[in-house]
Amino acid sequence: MNSEQFKSMIRNIPDFPRKGIQFKDITTVLKHPECMQWVVDQTAAIYRDKGITQVVGLESRGFIFAPAIAMKIGAGFVPVRKPGKLPADTIEVSYTKEYGTDTIQLHKDALKPDDVVLIHDDLLATGGSALAAVELVKKAGVKKIYANFVIELDDLEARKLFKDIEVQSLIHY
Amino acid sequence: MNSEQFKSMIRNIPDFPRKGIQFKDITTVLKHPECMQWVVDQTAAIYRDKGITQVVGLESRGFIFAPAIAMKIGAGFVPVRKPGKLPADTIEVSYTKEYGTDTIQLHKDALKPDDVVLIHDDLLATGGSALAAVELVKKAGVKKIYANFVIELDDLEARKLFKDIEVQSLIHY
Repeated sequence: MNSEQFKSMIRNIPDFPRKGIQFKDITTVLKHPECMQWVVDQTAAIYRDKGITQVVGLESRGFIFAPAIAMKIGAGFVPVRKPGKLPADTIEVSYTKEYGTDTIQLHKDALKPDDVVLIHDDLLATGGSALAAVELVKKAGVKKIYANFVIELDDLEARKLFKDIEVQSLIHY
Repeated sequence: MNSEQFKSMIRNIPDFPRKGIQFKDITTVLKHPECMQWVVDQTAAIYRDKGITQVVGLESRGFIFAPAIAMKIGAGFVPVRKPGKLPADTIEVSYTKEYGTDTIQLHKDALKPDDVVLIHDDLLATGGSALAAVELVKKAGVKKIYANFVIELDDLEARKLFKDIEVQSLIHY
């Protein structure tokens, strides 16, 4: 397995969720355990020596790989979720989307000041939700933050918006 | 790690999501990679020799362990999602909840007639969503179905409703 083989298994869905967007559907890849393992192994190889203590995954598709990556590098998994889903006390960040506003939450006690955090999601497009997650993790207060994606849409240039945060993705379009 | 140790790390949240419910919060467990690994290893040990080809995880909390379990037993991962999330052609099942109706979807081409499917979610309570997932996977048409949960609330007796489908859970309350 390499990134070109992986890429060839991703299904392109034109005009989803709306006209003009070429949606990258990874469900065709997830059916193959060796492809999932490739994502986990490649990602773990990038972050193994960075002292990551918690991998933060974004609901819902970020939950698919974040826990397996976390286990592979000996880190915990912390979910960032939509409002009303996390049962204990939360902190939150709201961000503007093309149509309206979204809010994401994190348990108030999920992260500690000495945590080194890897924020993971499946896709980096415009970066709205991932940047909100960065703001949320900064609000929680941790030592260092990295950001990681399975797929990055390079044309949208979202990685520039992360400034001092190192961004790494496995597949680029 | 054993089931009693695991149980002692689950956080009980009274009256969430509504009065009278003792919510079992696993986020306190997920922070510890050895606890996540315990879930994956124990579950994989149950299903290793059953010829499972695809693990179906229920959005969102079912996504946390289903892919790692799938990789461990050499199976693929298939997501069951809420309406509007899966980009290709879907089949769906609607089910009645305490307040209103919910619908879940599966990609039409996600499963094949010779698949042996493990349906996984984090919690078996009343069984509403899991039984809907069973109906959905039956509708897709597969060879055999198993159902698996991290936590089962025994008092609600939901396992009876699965009839001929074998149900296994790691932790019981």
